Amino acid sequence: MDGIGVNFLSELVGTAMLIILGGGVVAAVSLTKSKGFGAGFLMVTIGWGFAVFAGVTVSYSSGGQLNPAVSLALALLGKITVGEMFLYWIAQLIGAVIGAVIVWLAYKLHFDEEPDPAAKLGVFSTGPAIRSYGWNLVTEVIGTFVLVFVVLAFTNGGTPKELGAVPVAFLVIAIGVSLGGPTGYAINPARDLGPRLAHAFLPIKGKGSSDWSYAWVPVVGPLIGGALAAGASTFLLPIVS
Amino acid sequence: MDGIGVNFLSELVGTAMLIILGGGVVAAVSLTKSKGFGAGFLMVTIGWGFAVFAGVTVSYSSGGQLNPAVSLALALLGKITVGEMFLYWIAQLIGAVIGAVIVWLAYKLHFDEEPDPAAKLGVFSTGPAIRSYGWNLVTEVIGTFVLVFVVLAFTNGGTPKELGAVPVAFLVIAIGVSLGGPTGYAINPARDLGPRLAHAFLPIKGKGSSDWSYAWVPVVGPLIGGALAAGASTFLLPIVS
Amino acid sequence: MDGIGVNFLSELVGTAMLIILGGGVVAAVSLTKSKGFGAGFLMVTIGWGFAVFAGVTVSYSSGGQLNPAVSLALALLGKITVGEMFLYWIAQLIGAVIGAVIVWLAYKLHFDEEPDPAAKLGVFSTGPAIRSYGWNLVTEVIGTFVLVFVVLAFTNGGTPKELGAVPVAFLVIAIGVSLGGPTGYAINPARDLGPRLAHAFLPIKGKGSSDWSYAWVPVVGPLIGGALAAGASTFLLPIVS
Amino acid sequence: MDGIGVNFLSELVGTAMLIILGGGVVAAVSLTKSKGFGAGFLMVTIGWGFAVFAGVTVSYSSGGQLNPAVSLALALLGKITVGEMFLYWIAQLIGAVIGAVIVWLAYKLHFDEEPDPAAKLGVFSTGPAIRSYGWNLVTEVIGTFVLVFVVLAFTNGGTPKELGAVPVAFLVIAIGVSLGGPTGYAINPARDLGPRLAHAFLPIKGKGSSDWSYAWVPVVGPLIGGALAAGASTFLLPIVS
Repeated sequence: MDGIGVNFLSELVGTAMLIILGGGVVAAVSLTKSKGFGAGFLMVTIGWGFAVFAGVTVSYSSGGQLNPAVSLALALLGKITVGEMFLYWIAQLIGAVIGAVIVWLAYKLHFDEEPDPAAKLGVFSTGPAIRSYGWNLVTEVIGTFVLVFVVLAFTNGGTPKELGAVPVAFLVIAIGVSLGGPTGYAINPARDLGPRLAHAFLPIKGKGSSDWSYAWVPVVGPLIGGALAAGASTFLLPIVS
Repeated sequence: MDGIGVNFLSELVGTAMLIILGGGVVAAVSLTKSKGFGAGFLMVTIGWGFAVFAGVTVSYSSGGQLNPAVSLALALLGKITVGEMFLYWIAQLIGAVIGAVIVWLAYKLHFDEEPDPAAKLGVFSTGPAIRSYGWNLVTEVIGTFVLVFVVLAFTNGGTPKELGAVPVAFLVIAIGVSLGGPTGYAINPARDLGPRLAHAFLPIKGKGSSDWSYAWVPVVGPLIGGALAAGASTFLLPIVS
Repeated sequence: MDGIGVNFLSELVGTAMLIILGGGVVAAVSLTKSKGFGAGFLMVTIGWGFAVFAGVTVSYSSGGQLNPAVSLALALLGKITVGEMFLYWIAQLIGAVIGAVIVWLAYKLHFDEEPDPAAKLGVFSTGPAIRSYGWNLVTEVIGTFVLVFVVLAFTNGGTPKELGAVPVAFLVIAIGVSLGGPTGYAINPARDLGPRLAHAFLPIKGKGSSDWSYAWVPVVGPLIGGALAAGASTFLLPIVS
Repeated sequence: MDGIGVNFLSELVGTAMLIILGGGVVAAVSLTKSKGFGAGFLMVTIGWGFAVFAGVTVSYSSGGQLNPAVSLALALLGKITVGEMFLYWIAQLIGAVIGAVIVWLAYKLHFDEEPDPAAKLGVFSTGPAIRSYGWNLVTEVIGTFVLVFVVLAFTNGGTPKELGAVPVAFLVIAIGVSLGGPTGYAINPARDLGPRLAHAFLPIKGKGSSDWSYAWVPVVGPLIGGALAAGASTFLLPIVS
């Protein structure tokens, strides 16, 4: 297999791992009879942070982007080609769909017994606490800006390589606890769209709407945030040689 | 003492340490009058994560496998012999029994005052939130697949050696918070079977059934998950030289 | 851009990042309808700890001081000039104002729906649990002494460079959970004064007083604590060569 | 100042830091009107873990023992002399007293308004959930055995030096959440006796008994546990050269 095939698989596997563990923690907290039911928002954010840790770890071949907004930023900065970017986007989306299916399998009995369709959708996709597309978009732009900007700071010399994927885990926990309140912090188009697709086609017992009217916000917002972070990094994050 | 004897002791001691701290956190949260009573699922998962950290740390001679599913994967990949695998399985099981006895001693007064037999068994072994052996098995397979797959990614080049046992701690926290909801995540045959044996033979005041009808699930599921992860790693986790 | 301009921007950007994530976590926990509402003090302290992690990470050019009390200590120890100190103070204050504005934008809908003016101010600035300026000052002096003293221990050889900004994150979590109870641990004049200025001038719906009568405590206390730590470090923290 | 004087101060300062942050987190959680009131056992254990992190960090000159049980183990293993051990014990005890006084100052207003004498004592010293000196001793022996045994594993080659004081922080969190339930895990004679002395002589408003009848348990138990760990390490923890 050539390098691009390895990287395609790497992004796919990494994003699947991200969603297995990230979607899983929402299931653990919100589905009826789960042993983690009601464990709270802090556990959700820790879960997503270490989900990114695991995803990036298994995706070491391609550098563990796992997020179309990150890939967009890297393409804008000339670190990957536009062709690679689109390929990674596809891998990330497929991986996210697969990850969501696995979460559903792991929690099959709990999905079956869960009476609330909104709780089921919440395992797959984000939704706003207060619906107002403009401001929801602003929140997703800010959250993703922070994510991509700090990730670019890592690679520009802001953190030692010896820490591996630990810094991005801590960063994602930080964003979750701080900027996750209004929209549930998609900050990643694949993380939201892939599982939403899975929600739409899976035979989930008693499922409700996939809320497609909101689906564009966690896709467009992160892409804007990632692009802005790429631009800001060029004058705010000097490269340490 | 020759190398194999050192490694046998290393796996035994490491697994005992794992169970002392892992079983301990369940006792802390669930036994009456414990200062940690009711502290919640997040604390349980953090406890198990850092229990693995401590166990792997003291088991540095043998590489800190501490889990028959991990040893199986390493044997399938040719990294240890089948003979070593069986020896490690025995060491891990003995260590887990010893660890469970020590937890019982540390919480002796609380076991004596605890009225609920299920709470007592829960300190030793896992049990499903919704009983359905097939789906419970699926959950354990998925959880252990994630564990072993990411551990193999560590050793294949996915994380820096400078982090020691920190990555596996974060991984186990991630699995606990995300995939622990349905079955309490044994993801390790020794972790479940050893303490269940201890529960069966220890003179625990007012104990109930050791629930042997479920005991095969957290043994078989993790072994399947570990084997699948070994197979998947051969084409999804290229080795970084 | 010359070195001093780079460092000015670095302190500004780092402090803005610190306040986005730190102010954000208070918003997440305390503003109505936030998904993190009521998640508790532990989440707040973890949020501020990793906020410092992210802020220091993006501020690698200037060493990520992000705190006038830290800059004062470094100036007293002759590691930066007094001129640099004042420049950094200005950068830190501007960054803190910008960060607070961004938090307000991210939580705009929640600020609008929040009925309690005290909850709104709490997102920006600290306030005492029991008001008594003298003892509140003592608490802020102690908290900042601990912060600056341990930070100086880091640089004097107390922690490996390979850990990057992780140690300061853990330290800030430690201070928050332990010394944050009485005053909400400003331990940083810019962290408190900058957002308080933003609270005063922003058109926040239904906002109340900016509590200027308390504002001097989280400015003066941290500066005293930082100066004391600088002095104490000279005989208690020998430099490892 | 000669080397022994530097190390004496190092142990004193490190133990003071440990108690400031460790005693502080109990105050934050248990004293009336604290912003952290009721935040729970997980926060207490995280607080003590990172308190050890900060204490060990500032005590880099002497290696950050901060615990008579650790010093005893090192003396038994011939790594320090018996004379050094006694000197460190004195330094650790004095440091613990000083740390407790500082916690009292930081929380002065909350001590004054707290109606429950037991809550006040709890900020200083540990006490058993179920009083039974023999079993309480067993719990402290086990907890300290784990602490010292794993710490000896660190130094024998079980963890990379690049992690600094992070491993001991994670270990102390692990012990707290798992073995802290029955006795509140002193696992350190100085940590318990020093603050108990401070409780006895400080003019704390409305204080009750210092519970001297229990005071020997968290002194004797940890010393036994440390000695056993030293012995066990000689055949269970081979030194990696």
